[in-house]
Amino acid sequence: MDRRRFLHRNGLGLVGLWSASILDRAGMPPRSASQIKNPVIVFQGDSITDAHRDKARYYANDARGMGNGYVMLTAAELLGTEAAQDVKIYNRGISGHKVFQLANRWDIDCLSLKPTVLSILIGVNDFWHTLDWNYDGTAKVYERDLRALLQRTKEELPDVKLIMGMPFAVKGGTAITSKWDAFTAYQDACQEIALDFNAAIVPYQRIFDEALDEAPVSYWCPDGVHPSMAGAYLMKEAWMRAYSTL
Amino acid sequence: MDRRRFLHRNGLGLVGLWSASILDRAGMPPRSASQIKNPVIVFQGDSITDAHRDKARYYANDARGMGNGYVMLTAAELLGTEAAQDVKIYNRGISGHKVFQLANRWDIDCLSLKPTVLSILIGVNDFWHTLDWNYDGTAKVYERDLRALLQRTKEELPDVKLIMGMPFAVKGGTAITSKWDAFTAYQDACQEIALDFNAAIVPYQRIFDEALDEAPVSYWCPDGVHPSMAGAYLMKEAWMRAYSTL
Repeated sequence: MDRRRFLHRNGLGLVGLWSASILDRAGMPPRSASQIKNPVIVFQGDSITDAHRDKARYYANDARGMGNGYVMLTAAELLGTEAAQDVKIYNRGISGHKVFQLANRWDIDCLSLKPTVLSILIGVNDFWHTLDWNYDGTAKVYERDLRALLQRTKEELPDVKLIMGMPFAVKGGTAITSKWDAFTAYQDACQEIALDFNAAIVPYQRIFDEALDEAPVSYWCPDGVHPSMAGAYLMKEAWMRAYSTL
Repeated sequence: MDRRRFLHRNGLGLVGLWSASILDRAGMPPRSASQIKNPVIVFQGDSITDAHRDKARYYANDARGMGNGYVMLTAAELLGTEAAQDVKIYNRGISGHKVFQLANRWDIDCLSLKPTVLSILIGVNDFWHTLDWNYDGTAKVYERDLRALLQRTKEELPDVKLIMGMPFAVKGGTAITSKWDAFTAYQDACQEIALDFNAAIVPYQRIFDEALDEAPVSYWCPDGVHPSMAGAYLMKEAWMRAYSTL
């Protein structure tokens, strides 16, 4: 609070200070100048990325096609602050999806768009659906499939820059039980793959863990899986930091 | 471009610099610390405010109830940066509406929500529908109705703080013809009313006019009435500056 007041008094305003402190504590580097020019950015993932986007609006930079989550916030900021560049943004998240479902639609929903920046946040359903939906995948299947998907991507698009979001489950969320302790195996796999593929990592799990010091889980991510607007804002801030390191 | 590069090199990152320069040139004061505590904010207006919100999602702070425009961006930022406060945000914009239609639903869509901050952006349809929809209102009717609506609001909610957005029509937009020169009478009325009611003004017309120096109308507001994501981002930045003066 003192730091915040200090910055206020010195005219830096409110934006992102609260979240900046959370991101700092989560170990994220500060935002710097991006070197990316005229990016074509594809966001891939599940419901967190989808965020109820209008799937009939699949052209670049369509507001209704961005949903109501972190992709919308990120896209608006990139477009609103980079008017001098030719920024193209596509949201291709689909609710409920796991890695193998991304792979099934990868040609049309990734490769054919020829992204120069590919952002992937996937994994929570690969675990969650083993609890509730009789899905029989394992962390090993997740790792194998995700590794294969990235390999295929790098072969087709050797210069693509990768941003990998750490799948997360926020402690105390209404959907999160003690069974979710096993989810860390998926997170460990994602971390290892991200390092192997030289991806920028967005450590969403650590970020939400830190955010719980500021407000309860109901504020950031009520069910532990799907972020609120406040949670989506945090994710946007974090994603922008990762993007700035590319 | 030089200023932008300078700021980049000095580690201040991208956020809002492009738009900050536009807002500065439009005469907006810099953002400062808001004195507002635990706000209940109601956004009222037409399609620009509505932005395809899900009207079944009318509870406070529901992402799908915020639409895909400046309200969503503003709400996410307020919630994401003000976790220590109890912020409640309602979007009550409805596409196509004019002042008399706000008045018809004012009890339930404004007064009963007991806003401490009321944001109104209305007027483009009060003019536009005289061109295309056989609406027979005039600038005088607009002024009379808007003045009456604010008078009624101040009587019911004497402490409410007002933010009035200047209705705008961006030159070169596909819907904007030479007939729109007459729209300035509505803008003049809005400006006068805002001053009379001690509202914070968001000078959207000047802002979009300045933005045209950075990118064409198709980038900010293709039809001249409905902002793109980039335009919505600019509006959010401007609204936050006005909010910080309350």
